[in-house]
Amino acid sequence: MTDMSYLAPILGVLGLIIAFVIYGTIAKQPVGSEKMKEISEAIHDGAMAFLRREYKVLAIFIAIVFVLMVFAKDLGIYTALSFLGGALCSILAGFSGMTAATKANVRTSEAARAKGMAAALSVAYNGGAVMGLAVASLGLIGVGVLFMIFGNPETAKYINGFAMGASSIALFARVGGGIYTKAADVGADLVGKVEAGIPEDDPRNPGVIADNVGDNVGDIAGMGADIFESYVGSIVATLIIGATASPELLAMVTPSIQYDVTNAKMHLMAAPLMLAVLGLIASLAGVFSMKLLKNIEPAAALRYSTFIGAGLFLIFAYFYITSMAIANGVYFALLAGTLIGIMIGLVTEYYTAAGPVKRIVDASKTGPATNIITGLAVGLESVVVPVLLICVGIYVANAVAGLYGIGIAAVGMLATVGVTMTVDAYGPIADNAGGISEMAGLGKDVRNITDSLDAIGNTTAAVGKGFAIGSAALTALALFAAYSSSANVSVINITEPKVVIGLFIGGFLPFLIGALTMTSVGKAAEQMVEEIRRQFREIPGLLEGKEGVKPDPKTCVDISTAAALKEMILPGVLAVISPILVGFILGKEALGGTLAGATVTGVLLALLMANAGGAWDNAKKAVEKSAYGSAGKGSDQHKAAVVGDTVGDPFKDTSGPAMNILIKLMSIVSLIIAPLLV
Amino acid sequence: MTDMSYLAPILGVLGLIIAFVIYGTIAKQPVGSEKMKEISEAIHDGAMAFLRREYKVLAIFIAIVFVLMVFAKDLGIYTALSFLGGALCSILAGFSGMTAATKANVRTSEAARAKGMAAALSVAYNGGAVMGLAVASLGLIGVGVLFMIFGNPETAKYINGFAMGASSIALFARVGGGIYTKAADVGADLVGKVEAGIPEDDPRNPGVIADNVGDNVGDIAGMGADIFESYVGSIVATLIIGATASPELLAMVTPSIQYDVTNAKMHLMAAPLMLAVLGLIASLAGVFSMKLLKNIEPAAALRYSTFIGAGLFLIFAYFYITSMAIANGVYFALLAGTLIGIMIGLVTEYYTAAGPVKRIVDASKTGPATNIITGLAVGLESVVVPVLLICVGIYVANAVAGLYGIGIAAVGMLATVGVTMTVDAYGPIADNAGGISEMAGLGKDVRNITDSLDAIGNTTAAVGKGFAIGSAALTALALFAAYSSSANVSVINITEPKVVIGLFIGGFLPFLIGALTMTSVGKAAEQMVEEIRRQFREIPGLLEGKEGVKPDPKTCVDISTAAALKEMILPGVLAVISPILVGFILGKEALGGTLAGATVTGVLLALLMANAGGAWDNAKKAVEKSAYGSAGKGSDQHKAAVVGDTVGDPFKDTSGPAMNILIKLMSIVSLIIAPLLV
Repeated sequence: MTDMSYLAPILGVLGLIIAFVIYGTIAKQPVGSEKMKEISEAIHDGAMAFLRREYKVLAIFIAIVFVLMVFAKDLGIYTALSFLGGALCSILAGFSGMTAATKANVRTSEAARAKGMAAALSVAYNGGAVMGLAVASLGLIGVGVLFMIFGNPETAKYINGFAMGASSIALFARVGGGIYTKAADVGADLVGKVEAGIPEDDPRNPGVIADNVGDNVGDIAGMGADIFESYVGSIVATLIIGATASPELLAMVTPSIQYDVTNAKMHLMAAPLMLAVLGLIASLAGVFSMKLLKNIEPAAALRYSTFIGAGLFLIFAYFYITSMAIANGVYFALLAGTLIGIMIGLVTEYYTAAGPVKRIVDASKTGPATNIITGLAVGLESVVVPVLLICVGIYVANAVAGLYGIGIAAVGMLATVGVTMTVDAYGPIADNAGGISEMAGLGKDVRNITDSLDAIGNTTAAVGKGFAIGSAALTALALFAAYSSSANVSVINITEPKVVIGLFIGGFLPFLIGALTMTSVGKAAEQMVEEIRRQFREIPGLLEGKEGVKPDPKTCVDISTAAALKEMILPGVLAVISPILVGFILGKEALGGTLAGATVTGVLLALLMANAGGAWDNAKKAVEKSAYGSAGKGSDQHKAAVVGDTVGDPFKDTSGPAMNILIKLMSIVSLIIAPLLV
Repeated sequence: MTDMSYLAPILGVLGLIIAFVIYGTIAKQPVGSEKMKEISEAIHDGAMAFLRREYKVLAIFIAIVFVLMVFAKDLGIYTALSFLGGALCSILAGFSGMTAATKANVRTSEAARAKGMAAALSVAYNGGAVMGLAVASLGLIGVGVLFMIFGNPETAKYINGFAMGASSIALFARVGGGIYTKAADVGADLVGKVEAGIPEDDPRNPGVIADNVGDNVGDIAGMGADIFESYVGSIVATLIIGATASPELLAMVTPSIQYDVTNAKMHLMAAPLMLAVLGLIASLAGVFSMKLLKNIEPAAALRYSTFIGAGLFLIFAYFYITSMAIANGVYFALLAGTLIGIMIGLVTEYYTAAGPVKRIVDASKTGPATNIITGLAVGLESVVVPVLLICVGIYVANAVAGLYGIGIAAVGMLATVGVTMTVDAYGPIADNAGGISEMAGLGKDVRNITDSLDAIGNTTAAVGKGFAIGSAALTALALFAAYSSSANVSVINITEPKVVIGLFIGGFLPFLIGALTMTSVGKAAEQMVEEIRRQFREIPGLLEGKEGVKPDPKTCVDISTAAALKEMILPGVLAVISPILVGFILGKEALGGTLAGATVTGVLLALLMANAGGAWDNAKKAVEKSAYGSAGKGSDQHKAAVVGDTVGDPFKDTSGPAMNILIKLMSIVSLIIAPLLV
């Protein structure tokens, strides 16, 4: 079966072709009125301009790291080339996803206007599918090709470079995109909704275009890079655990061929890749099932398409694992990973809906302070069940397949990324479509369709975030296992003071990254507020909505762009440098402690921030709909709820998601430098 | 020198006598007008009533644990009796401190009125000294007596019970007191300051008495129990590390007598106790130096009295260590602990003043949301330097004296608790004095004196909180070292999945306790808001300040009391039960992981919450004084700053401090059950 690894790049290319075909069908859809075209072009241009400038900054980073790798002892040109490949694939995935999304958004509005709900759902979903399939396909092509070249136990370590390339781009993209989108969102809301009292996405607000650009660069390109990284990271980590497997591990997971060490290891190395191949096939089926599902209730349709993908994958994987010289127990690790991924998503859905949201709505009656206290309490509480689920996952995976099981559980969570990412990317497209409908004045009926598509998007986004955190945790743990295996440290003893120091350092890094990113959003949002206030003040007739008077969205786009590019540097560099410093100064055991510490607090903060943010957002929406006996739009209760929502914005879309990548990037950097540490 | 351990209880009794004498001098001071007497009696009665009811609940808990211990294999009656002693000493310390504080508060007001600043400072300081000396003396008596009975390597483990008694009372007292004080504070502020627009501590506000009671039960009794626990915990942990020292450790820290194992161990066991004796002598000198210092600038006087205590202690300790058969290097561990304790306090002072506060003040211009975002960012950032300092402390202590050094560093931080706790307890007394002056209408001049004493109290409180967290961290680490030594687990390997699971479980527990306590405060504050609103609505003439119309403070006191007693149970029980569950289900290595995880996230959350809370508080005060170019009282900027302050209340006075005790209590419970784990 190991000689079937050529299947990975082939299937990857096939997936990419299908993504192109889908893109073609989107591009053929009508754009709608001149005004819609104009708005969507402004969003598209802003997003593309940002990506181009971002990639220029990243090119410098990539070049420096590339050169350092070439000359580093024990790394060399192969790791450097892998790194380059990973970075380029990540960029390509982000770029193609964004291109499709910025075409799909306006066409979703137009479909909603001309043809109704089902057609609009279909366009938005297809827009997401381009991203989903691009992520999975590019990952398979990259890792697949590298596996064909370096796919044996001795040279497999060069493949780590690919994961690191993906990781470092992801951190910059996530942080940059996150700062961009929330600076624009917070700024536009503070002046537009709170001060001027005009609705969300009102065309008079000069920050609205930047806000919509932000949805694309943050939630599409940033999220895509994040998931791409998890996907690649889980495959590579499992592959490396296989390549460096101990005799005990081989006896456990490849009992029938354990003494044929190379063969046994090759089996373990090929498995994650082949599982990813099966996952992509299952995902394609899931994506295409939407053709049949699109006429049922949209939320159910999205859910079913994911379930079809996951269900088929579990069936395929069962036949794969039981037919190979791999212990059948390994399947249970995979099953645990897949199920726990889904369950964490459901817990996130609970915390950003139902009871917890009602608690925040009620607390808003006594003002913004109690709204914030309750939201933070909900966020703090919401970490418990997901972390317990992760613990169950670790326990089961380890019981059936040792450290290899932890890698396989991560692969199980991520193999069907083609369809889960599709659903994730659908959300911001629907959100954008709503914004365009509002700005273009498409009327209440159209807005109702896009609103309900958007509302579903909020739920899928919450589930997607829980899933992203869960998969990041398992991927980081798999990378951690790969690190300890590669660095040849079988014991990282927390009764050793150096390891405790490592644990503390790792522990505070997510706090520091959180502080930096929240501060960046705060600063940029303040600039945005000043600029929007200035335009309302200085452009006569703008706020009154006088015919023909237009805001100047370009300066707002520039503020977000400049802030994002400037502020993404420090967190990104910190994440790369910290493990290197700890590793070389305090040694590889302390670095192990740092990874463990960062993973624990990173996962906790990520959950806290994502869930509190989501709950605040939905509490505000609930008050706007006068749900749970609340006082409705414009009331003091609503104002309190808006405060919570605004605090939640950088939580859930900037700082929180940065944690996922931080812990993976730190782990992968450690894995890369492992051979250099004495 | 080991036969000099009788000095500990003797000096403890001496300290207690001095505390009594000081209490006598306070009681002799004049109380002032009839109105002042009435107010102070209401506060005193409310506080004592709460303590009595709290102790009744705790008696049940103590009885249950006592019986369980008596019948538990390997624990038995000796541990149970130690436990009882620890619990009673903690209760006694809290009770005597509160009695003194509730006498000193009104006498401070009267001294300010009749004699001016220096006299008022002196009364408030003496009130704090009763608590400070009671904490140190009772600790020395308790541990000293037990040491005389069980002070040899085989039976030393029975002394652990004393620390556990202190710890469990501390958790309930801290959480109960914290919920009490913040429910009253938040409730009184939300209706009084925000809705009705009347000043803080206005006598018309029915919640004000409860608020002032809360300062005593939270900041005096709660804080006292917290520090008592750290003090006892650090001594006991070091003693146990000495009792279970490995031959390598003995060679390192008692090189000259290493082969006379019992003698060497006795040296190590006696040292923390003797250092505490020296610390109490130095503290007494510090406390009495105030007689000379009281006429200089109050803030400087408080600082100098602490420095005199710490300086003398370092000198005494130097002569002690160098004269014993203990490696001189051990002194550097002590020095590191003392200095790092002070430095963490200074970092806390920075973050709750200066630059970070200005950032929050500026952010308040754009409303409550940016105030909250910036405050959280400040809090997240503020963890970095203190944690790095703790890391330096661990590194130095371990380098010079192994795990024993970590214990000694904690002892170094805490030995002069007699004077540091005095300064801590001074703060809430000054705060209360201010409240009484306002309620009794003592006029602007008196209020100016009490305000400036209170302002200094805020700084000392911030420094004290940083110190409490730093000492809790080192004490928890020392207890962790004692645990691994007692449980005979020299290796707790974080590449083992079970340990990782432990790490995650420990990691989320502080989040869960944070969620529970914040929710409790939120719920109780909402009840308080309803009640105060009801009184303003239903008592005619109250809000207008009609002559002779009085609020009904008793119902508010009852609300806080009931909420605190009910809501302290779950967090307290969770903290005791979790280590037992993890230990018996997942084993002692996993429990080690849990302790490490809880210590890391507990310290981080404690710092985040204390510093963000303090910074918000001071930002609000800065806006009220129109500092940093802000808009002053009543402005929108002020309203935004009040929101931050209100969110910060449960952060800094309920949930944050609970973390300190949580990590110590979990560690001590683990230490107790260590012999029971296979």
